[in-house]
Amino acid sequence: MTTPDEPVSRRSRPSKAPLSRQAIVEAARALIRERGVEAVALRHVAERVETGPASLYAYFGSRDILLEHVLDTVYAEVELVDVGRGGRGRGWREALAGTVVHTIDTLGRYPGLGAVALGSIPTLPGALRLAEHELSLMEAGGVPEERAALAVDLLAQFAASSAVERGVRLDRPHDDDQRRRVRSAFEAADADRFPRVTRAAALLTGPDDRSRRDFALQAIITGIEGSHRS
Amino acid sequence: MTTPDEPVSRRSRPSKAPLSRQAIVEAARALIRERGVEAVALRHVAERVETGPASLYAYFGSRDILLEHVLDTVYAEVELVDVGRGGRGRGWREALAGTVVHTIDTLGRYPGLGAVALGSIPTLPGALRLAEHELSLMEAGGVPEERAALAVDLLAQFAASSAVERGVRLDRPHDDDQRRRVRSAFEAADADRFPRVTRAAALLTGPDDRSRRDFALQAIITGIEGSHRS
Repeated sequence: MTTPDEPVSRRSRPSKAPLSRQAIVEAARALIRERGVEAVALRHVAERVETGPASLYAYFGSRDILLEHVLDTVYAEVELVDVGRGGRGRGWREALAGTVVHTIDTLGRYPGLGAVALGSIPTLPGALRLAEHELSLMEAGGVPEERAALAVDLLAQFAASSAVERGVRLDRPHDDDQRRRVRSAFEAADADRFPRVTRAAALLTGPDDRSRRDFALQAIITGIEGSHRS
Repeated sequence: MTTPDEPVSRRSRPSKAPLSRQAIVEAARALIRERGVEAVALRHVAERVETGPASLYAYFGSRDILLEHVLDTVYAEVELVDVGRGGRGRGWREALAGTVVHTIDTLGRYPGLGAVALGSIPTLPGALRLAEHELSLMEAGGVPEERAALAVDLLAQFAASSAVERGVRLDRPHDDDQRRRVRSAFEAADADRFPRVTRAAALLTGPDDRSRRDFALQAIITGIEGSHRS
């Protein structure tokens, strides 16, 4: 409601585009892609949308709340993989694994957002869309609803923590060097105390990140599928 | 080698206990338990052991390296669960699940250390001891060595990310309030877009952290066990 004696801005410069929640989230997303979550303060986002931090607080009560909204717009753009049509199409397991891989990849484009995802309980539409899709795939696979609901959580934890791990490893160049160094450490370990570790050094350090991820996803989905039979 | 003209300290105050790697790690552990990883700088650790940061660098080249050693001493104190003796003893699955639960609990006593664990590739003795134990349990369960090696990684990722999640949730009081709020959000979601989410709202938000963890662990171990059969 406008009161007659409300002060009128005397600034004569041209008016800016009105601030919106969407514009703020977009600015935060762009900054996170450039610098990573940890380097982004509300003050930087405010500068990007040409306002003061106090104005941002009117839209998002805290940095954490803004980050939850950023995370949700990122979840919203995860490409969902459907079950293939016809007898030769891909099954629900492949579709579910593909959807989780896309989640990891999409989170991975925003350094530090995996850690935000790991700490948040998702209630916004982007996360609900992902949960709905995963539930529909597990329904197609005959997974009972109660287990499917728990599985949504496990898949989210796996996707977020995989994005965190990958982010940390991207910060370290010379991945092959590192793997060789780790393998040497395993091989050089005390074979009396750690006989299996020293024997399995090549197996423990050989597979690349992609093979590890695929093994983990297949194990998790097998567990989701299989555990309701036991 | 001592050279004749080496300078001799002229300080007359009583000599301190000699600085050791172990003393530094102990000081860092105590600080992390009190304040969490993020609040602990090398400077604080140096104060606790009554030296300057420069002296610490002589022992640990960086804060990250010190944290890796702290993490490893924490891994070293994880209680390992063995397969029970005799026909009625617990099986390898229960022993493996128990060992992972202890890993989560032990990491959880050091706020922020889960995130360090998620970012590190373990090569120190505490982590090797844990890996050796897990490999021995999977060997007892007949899991082929190649899969068991990959499973060690998956279990470490699960333990570390569970510790991170729990840490974030402990920061937020009123867990029940929060769960009720999340459930309301799910129930209030658009039922046309998210039919399964709204229908399964109670299932998605009902189980407590312990039930979720147990489901996840059982699914992962079933997957580790089962996937080598397919």
